[in-house]
Order: sequence, then structure tokens, then C-alpha cells
Amino acid sequence: MERVFNFAAGPATMPLEVLQSIEKNICNFEGEGLSVMEMSHRSKTYEKIINETRDNLRTILNLDNNFDILFLQGGASSQFAMVPLNLANNGDLTYYAVTGNFANKAWDEAKRWTNAVDITNSMSDKYKYIPHIDSSKIDKSAKYLHITANNTIFGTMYDNLPEVDIPLVADVSSNVLGKDYDYKKFALAYAGAQKNLGPAGLTVVIINKKYIRSDLDKSVPTMFRYDIHAKNDSMYNTPPTFAIYVAGEMFKWVLKQGGVKELEKRNIEKANMIYDILDNSSFYKPFAEKESRSIMNVTFNLKTEELETKFIAEAKENGMINLKGHRVLGGIRASIYNAMTIEGVKKLTEFMQTFEKNNK
Amino acid sequence: MERVFNFAAGPATMPLEVLQSIEKNICNFEGEGLSVMEMSHRSKTYEKIINETRDNLRTILNLDNNFDILFLQGGASSQFAMVPLNLANNGDLTYYAVTGNFANKAWDEAKRWTNAVDITNSMSDKYKYIPHIDSSKIDKSAKYLHITANNTIFGTMYDNLPEVDIPLVADVSSNVLGKDYDYKKFALAYAGAQKNLGPAGLTVVIINKKYIRSDLDKSVPTMFRYDIHAKNDSMYNTPPTFAIYVAGEMFKWVLKQGGVKELEKRNIEKANMIYDILDNSSFYKPFAEKESRSIMNVTFNLKTEELETKFIAEAKENGMINLKGHRVLGGIRASIYNAMTIEGVKKLTEFMQTFEKNNK
Repeated sequence: MERVFNFAAGPATMPLEVLQSIEKNICNFEGEGLSVMEMSHRSKTYEKIINETRDNLRTILNLDNNFDILFLQGGASSQFAMVPLNLANNGDLTYYAVTGNFANKAWDEAKRWTNAVDITNSMSDKYKYIPHIDSSKIDKSAKYLHITANNTIFGTMYDNLPEVDIPLVADVSSNVLGKDYDYKKFALAYAGAQKNLGPAGLTVVIINKKYIRSDLDKSVPTMFRYDIHAKNDSMYNTPPTFAIYVAGEMFKWVLKQGGVKELEKRNIEKANMIYDILDNSSFYKPFAEKESRSIMNVTFNLKTEELETKFIAEAKENGMINLKGHRVLGGIRASIYNAMTIEGVKKLTEFMQTFEKNNK
Repeated sequence: MERVFNFAAGPATMPLEVLQSIEKNICNFEGEGLSVMEMSHRSKTYEKIINETRDNLRTILNLDNNFDILFLQGGASSQFAMVPLNLANNGDLTYYAVTGNFANKAWDEAKRWTNAVDITNSMSDKYKYIPHIDSSKIDKSAKYLHITANNTIFGTMYDNLPEVDIPLVADVSSNVLGKDYDYKKFALAYAGAQKNLGPAGLTVVIINKKYIRSDLDKSVPTMFRYDIHAKNDSMYNTPPTFAIYVAGEMFKWVLKQGGVKELEKRNIEKANMIYDILDNSSFYKPFAEKESRSIMNVTFNLKTEELETKFIAEAKENGMINLKGHRVLGGIRASIYNAMTIEGVKKLTEFMQTFEKNNK
């Protein structure tokens, strides 16, 4: 089969030119006589790769030296634990904006260690929108407010970051490098790589150095301590070397495209192509409320489950895969991260119009 | 440069045919129209990959259904914490055989949670040998004995597993699939992938199901609980999909070579080619004591540091890289895992003989 259009929520589609560059170097990296997978993480060649990768991300996100960039493992799920263990003491007050399944998981995990309070919670409304945070309700002794910047399953997103007087922590897994936030506003932001950064198995953590603590409880595992990873430049243990290399190739591609501002513009354009159809049809029903809509994941329903199944199957026959919504929500979800082309979205919208005509 | 002989301790050399198979599928996996890196971990194609990988490892290690195989992240360093957190309660007695730097790190980490005692410790003898474990000293109320099966830095290895009446836990990172142990003797064994299993960023855990507990302390992070990963077939969160795929290609290669017995035979042959030179020379000085020698990492010294530096530089000029010993020990280390060919070791031994002649 020729290349498909892959609308998966993550692991997700990557730019073909990035894959081709990796392919060219699989057996013999730039003529060095070995693969990146075989390189000692302490070798000069690999150190150059990881340093360049870190520097490029710093450039892309416009971060100054007050911030450390860490390359870790374990996905966002490990961060759900690391954030409270590192930023709070046992029993401290922390706030969570519960705007989706993963936000809820982060909150649950924080309860193991802190007095974690859901400052806002849209669960009873099926996470259809990003609820407002009433900053007058915030106790300033709280260690941080945790938000989920983009809710992959429900297709909602913070268009603007909440303004609060306590440290802001964000799970940016599904809109990092796709939505243009001011990262200097975060005390800490983290992202599993498998959406906009490359392959699964790598987690990027951006942390303001003033929140890195060394006086943690003895019970906190060494591998779950930001101070250890920061002090060792993400080389306390063997890092996921190949995944970091691939992320580095992605960062070079982002720079070549003109950075996050340009990619955000394209993402808005792509998302609007689909939302326009949803808003001008009684056949398709958008899920997320208008003012909370994501530019990364577009969620919608058809009249019946049967029709949705038919939609997904016919799309697949036409070379568009992974349009099925997450199992907790059902329906249709089109994930249109940075690497999804306008051409791919055009093909999807044309298919949607044809499908509507044929099944009205 | 043509392909080098890479004697790195990890990440380490891989078979060229495995790299070539990966290369062929980087942009388009078996004609499916996308890369493994882009595949949803919940897709049918990927499920087939991970299931086949798990099944092949079960076959290779001759494990019955009493054992679970988990694909995790975070390297051996994360296991240093997970083992005590899951197999012991806070303050319980645990035993560590301290036979090297990593064994010592595992012991240190266990002290955060348990009453961890070094039942044996060869630190004062520079970890030159694997000390005997006096089983009469073992208190049977202890939760487990932890050993490091192969000490990568020092070049020592357990030829036979210790016989004890408490659960045996082993870090097999650097000799898994290279040394033929009876894995059914382990309560738990774990291995970072980057030596004999493929790329960094994947850790394989083999656990006897009767040691999987769900009644853990509330403070244990979800991602550090074996019961959660076992219940979810290593898909509690997004696994390191590409690294697992590469490990799967390695397992197919191991099966094609005739399995661990055959590879162990070759590894003994390779190791003896080097040890024979060391034992018949006053120019080279082997580090590890004879009865504790590793068949994976061969460590030795030359008369002076200058000569060692010259040896490493000239070897590199001759296409043999990463022969420098670990910084805590110095000297020379040749890591000769499964993927290092007899041809590569032959080239090294010929170089050693020439170097001796020229520098006597």
C-alpha cells in the first residue's frame, strides 16, 4: 500500500521527510560506521546529537537559561507521579483542573501524595468544554495548579493559559509545538513524545530551575527526582538514545517549517476546514463546545453508531486510518498534529462531504 | 567509513541483518503504508508485533505461564526502586549481593524503602570476583536476595546461580540471552535492553506471577507497580513501541542463531580467544579473577595509562571502537555481546598480538 493518511491520536503520523532521513542513517549514521541505536550515550557523536536536540528545542520554545530541558522515560503517566513528589511535600495542597480522562488520572495520582483538590471539573458535562478557573478560589499556599493543555480524547484545548498566582504545571503532551503558548509562564510542562515530538518512549520535561528541589523525602525513588536528572543532563542512566535522536530530527523539521507560530497557523487552518463542515451540517455533530475546541484533535458524532462504523471503514478503504474515537467517548476523532498535511485534511473533508451525500 | 567493530558496553553493537530489516521497514512497515513509529499501540498490526515479541522471548527463555513478561521503561535504574517497592513492605529485610557499581546502586536504592543488607560485598577487593554467598547466614524472613548476574564494568559474572531458600531477584541486563541460566529459578529478573536486546529505552521484566502483589502501600506510584503493568499487558500507558519492535527483531535473530545455548557457546569461544592472550602474556594483565570471569565483558590493563591510551587510539584507527574501560575502573574493556562476531574478536586478538610486539 502507498502511504496512508494516519489520523491516530498517538503514536501519530510523522513527516515523510523525517522518516526518510532516519532511514538513510539506520545502518550507518552519517558515515560513522554504526547505527545511532548502537552508539554509546557517552560517545562524542551521540553527545553532539543530544546537545543539538536540546538546543533546538530551547530555540523553538524560546526558553532562556532559567529553564532546564530533561529527556526522560515513562510517558505522561510517570509525570503524574513525579510532579507531586517533586513539587509538594506529603499532604500539601495542590490544585487540578479536571478537564478530561488524563487530567483525572493526573489528579488521582496526585492524591497518593498530596491534598489534591479539583479546582474545576467538567466531568459531569462529559468534558465537553474547558471550565473557567475562579482565581479567587485559589489558596495561595497551594504548591501548584495542574492543567491538561489539550484533552486528546475529547478534543478540547486551552486557547489561553489561566492566570494564577501559584506555579502553573501543564501536561502539554498533545499540543506541544502545535499551539503557541508562552512557555516561560510554566513552572513545569511535560510532554510524552508520541504526538508532536516523535516516537513513544520519550518524555520531555521543561522545568523552571527554581522549582528543582533536592530536599525531597527519602522515599522518593531516585529515578523520579528531577534534581538528579537535571544535575546529570538527562544522563543519570542510559537515556532512550534513539527516541531522542528521532525527536531531534523532528525539531529540525519544525525549525525548517518556520517554528511553532507557523505550525499553529496551519493547524488552525486544518482544524477550521473540518469544523466548518461540522458547523454547516445537520449530518455531523461536533462534540466539543465551540470556545474550547482543540486544533489538534477534532471530535464528532454521526447519527448512529452503525453510521460511524461505516464512516470509519469507508475512510480506511480510501487510505485514511485511525479515525475511530477513543473507547471512552466513541464517535469519530481526527487527530491532525503538525505532521498531518493540509492535503490529508482536504482528502478527509472531501470524503466527509461525499459520505454525507451518500448517507443522508 | 565502512562498518566498525563496536565493543561498547551499551548501547551496543547489533547484528547488521537486524538493522537492515529495520531499515527496509522504516517508512512503510510491510506495505501497511506507515512506519512502526507512527502506529497506534492499539492497532491490530502493532498488537501482532508486541504479542509475537513476547511469545518469542517466552520460547527463547523457556518460560511457562507461571511467568509474566513485561515491557517497561526507565532502565535497570527504575527496577532498582520497583523491586523493593513491590516485593517488600516498608522496613522489611532484603539481601543484596554487592558485586559491582550497579549492584551497589541497587542496594542503595533499596535502602530507601527496606532494611537492605549486603549479604556479601566485594567492594574492598575492587569487585575483582563474585564472592560466595553463605546461605547459612540467610534469615528466611527476608523478602528476597538480589544479585547482579553480570557486572559490566568489572567483567565478572555468576557462572552458576546461588542456591537460596528465599526468592531470587536478578539484574540480568548485561548477560540476558548471552548466558544460559534457568530463568524459572528467578522470582524476578530484569534487563535494560541496550546490551543484548536492542535499543536503549526498553526494560524487560520477567516475573513469577506469585510475586505480583496488589496490596501495595498507597504511596507507590502507579507506574512503579508490577500488578498494573501485568494486568494491562504492558499497555497501561503507551509503551515504547519502536524499541519493542526492534527487540522483537533481535529475538527473531536469536531464534535463527539456534537460541541461547548456541549463543552462549559462541560467547565462551569469543571470550576465551581474548582470555587466552591475557593468560599467556606479561604485557596484558586481566582484571577479573579467573573463576568469576564474564563472557560478555572482558576487562584488562596494560602497564601504563599512556600505553592504554595508545592501544585505544590505534584500535580505533583499525576500525575497533569503544574499547576504553568504564571511568570508575579505567583500563581496557571489550564488550562482546551476542551481536559481536567471531570475526570481530579475531580482529581484536590479532591487533592485541601486534600491539604487544610493537610496544614490548
